[in-house]
Amino acid sequence: MPFHSHKLPNGLQIIGETSPSARSAALGFFVRTGARDETPEVSGVTHFLEHMVFKGTPHRTALDVNRDFDRIGADYNAFTSEENTVFHAAVLPEYLPQAVDILADILRPSLRGDDFDMEKKVIIEEIGMYEDQPMWSAYDHAKRVFFAEHRLGNSILGTPASITALTRDQMHDYFRRRYVAPNVTVAVAGHFDWPAFVALVERHCGGWESGPVGRECLRETAGSCKFEVMTREKVAQEHVILMSPGPAADSPLRHSADLLGMAVGDDSGSRLYWALVDLGLADSADCSFHEYEGTGSFYTSFSGEPEQAEANLGVVLDVLRGVQKDGITEEELNQARSKVLSRVVRSSERPKGRMVALGMNWTYQHQYRSVDDELRAYEAVTLKSVREVLERYPLDRVTTLALGPLKKLEAPANGKK
Amino acid sequence: MPFHSHKLPNGLQIIGETSPSARSAALGFFVRTGARDETPEVSGVTHFLEHMVFKGTPHRTALDVNRDFDRIGADYNAFTSEENTVFHAAVLPEYLPQAVDILADILRPSLRGDDFDMEKKVIIEEIGMYEDQPMWSAYDHAKRVFFAEHRLGNSILGTPASITALTRDQMHDYFRRRYVAPNVTVAVAGHFDWPAFVALVERHCGGWESGPVGRECLRETAGSCKFEVMTREKVAQEHVILMSPGPAADSPLRHSADLLGMAVGDDSGSRLYWALVDLGLADSADCSFHEYEGTGSFYTSFSGEPEQAEANLGVVLDVLRGVQKDGITEEELNQARSKVLSRVVRSSERPKGRMVALGMNWTYQHQYRSVDDELRAYEAVTLKSVREVLERYPLDRVTTLALGPLKKLEAPANGKK
Repeated sequence: MPFHSHKLPNGLQIIGETSPSARSAALGFFVRTGARDETPEVSGVTHFLEHMVFKGTPHRTALDVNRDFDRIGADYNAFTSEENTVFHAAVLPEYLPQAVDILADILRPSLRGDDFDMEKKVIIEEIGMYEDQPMWSAYDHAKRVFFAEHRLGNSILGTPASITALTRDQMHDYFRRRYVAPNVTVAVAGHFDWPAFVALVERHCGGWESGPVGRECLRETAGSCKFEVMTREKVAQEHVILMSPGPAADSPLRHSADLLGMAVGDDSGSRLYWALVDLGLADSADCSFHEYEGTGSFYTSFSGEPEQAEANLGVVLDVLRGVQKDGITEEELNQARSKVLSRVVRSSERPKGRMVALGMNWTYQHQYRSVDDELRAYEAVTLKSVREVLERYPLDRVTTLALGPLKKLEAPANGKK
Repeated sequence: MPFHSHKLPNGLQIIGETSPSARSAALGFFVRTGARDETPEVSGVTHFLEHMVFKGTPHRTALDVNRDFDRIGADYNAFTSEENTVFHAAVLPEYLPQAVDILADILRPSLRGDDFDMEKKVIIEEIGMYEDQPMWSAYDHAKRVFFAEHRLGNSILGTPASITALTRDQMHDYFRRRYVAPNVTVAVAGHFDWPAFVALVERHCGGWESGPVGRECLRETAGSCKFEVMTREKVAQEHVILMSPGPAADSPLRHSADLLGMAVGDDSGSRLYWALVDLGLADSADCSFHEYEGTGSFYTSFSGEPEQAEANLGVVLDVLRGVQKDGITEEELNQARSKVLSRVVRSSERPKGRMVALGMNWTYQHQYRSVDDELRAYEAVTLKSVREVLERYPLDRVTTLALGPLKKLEAPANGKK
């Protein structure tokens, strides 16, 4: 059994999967905190804090952090989502001690006032950059409309106003509450020595504060069913997102939901692909399932010429209603399964792929799942379990957000029941 | 020894590296033909032909090609460079027969007239898209100026005029001459059965036409040393590329050249990074070594505010002259080495990474090189061998191309000797 796990007295969880054939190691610090854990007053603090983590500690300047990672040839980065903030690095096995040293150190950042003020400008610029990406903006607003007062509708980046108003003390308070040891999982995969790794993490993180961890608003939601049009005259194409409800990250239906989403809208061959993209009616058309703690949702989206948007919306609604009524075919299920199995296997061949899967499974399922466990779960999906997903989570119960030059957009009459 | 090789009677080369721990297989058809093999009349034909390969055969429509790859969950794609056209796919081992069937079939494309006319528009649109990426445009023109009448200066995409003038017969003629069996190497890596794989390739490709293969203009070049400014008023930032000579792809000095380029201009910590990017003087600043058949070159580039371009050019020239005079330090060499070793190891963990390395090594070195061979070659680089690179290929013998809003640009006086 190549899986190992150990919990430090302060509550920090360490997990690892050794792979005898790997020649490198990947490790990640998974902090279970994200935009959904923010109150409106500190909107965007999680992502801003992720940036500040690289700005230095009592032992390292921002320059030292960069140079120290560089010296060991690390491939390192971080990301913030609705629910997680993850800091990770991939290195040659001999540099694992240094990688743990750096990551553990920066996760207790100084949050210096002058760095805070400087980085504020970078964050506000980043928000501006994302606003230039219409599909990303549409995604951010679709979540807001779908989730309504549910905290999963929170924006990850926040707004220029919320970031401007944020104080260093508010960030420090958020950090003290959310970065406590029991809210952190350290995952390692690839080529490493488990007892030595545990000793390393214990040495660097054993003194981290413990404390209560929690998360509010874990209920399931079926979405607001609203239809909102956001007019952006400078945007050339119309971007439309339809969100529908789906199972949560710990639901036994999640693999069925994943294959259903792919059959409907995978970008390389799917119902939507053949109905819109292949015919040149839309630039893009996708459907995919996203799982969260306590709830989930399907994101169906398309983009293209504004004058084509109404007709395309009709086609998309017809596809979603057709699937809701008659399900998908055996051939569509098998094709989606082939793609997913291939992707799971290929991503598992890299320590980084396994490290991320390991950390995420522990965060959401509180258990170890091998590659074979995942493959078996996808093998077990049937047309019947897909039908069960549709019955419990109607794919045509849509909340719609359009962003682009159009002033109004309506589902065409022939697209209505 | 996990390496295997076999040549078919028609001259097609098959090579493979088995990895017992891999759970997928990656295969690629490496056609040794690229922009440098084009005459001016057919500029862009190699890349256009790469597109046409996916448009169908006597046995498959374009739709079938897409659906057949999709059905087996293949991760597939193709690329065209100055010297190679590569078609590749990664699949689960049980789908290797289908993957070979599809790839071998599409490499004997129908080149139907109506598809040719349709795709011409796509290519011309693609050229327009790349023109909107100023650094890419600058790179294309820098090669033209540096290589001058050497064929490596050929544009990969061609121009709207050359593509418009191209006929289906010219493409067919190019195809018949360049896609002959002895000009193709099939590489496979990961989890597969070698005798079965050879039998598969033989069945599908054994009947391919043989024929003479060649390549003109293989001499080394030190570059034109010209300085060209291309004014593009609509481009916001100034993009500057300085090219200098370097060793060829089969030179024993190539690993030293690679580490030298990284020490000077890797994008995560290097002389240029600390001199320009970290100080906020430029948006980007890089130096990297590119190897070709018969010659090589270093590409140094930076981009940023136009009013800063002259001063930045001075800084870059100072860095290049400083390195030319005094070399790099032991610490810089070791840091570059750590990064490269880490990258080589990490990319080798995926069958796709090994397949590409395998195919490229065979194309350029006509030999098998294991991951350990590559690691040892980088381990063996010394300050002395880096010095040898500099002596034979002066880093400050630059050909310069600037593209952006500036009407003129000159190296500042204090940047001159």
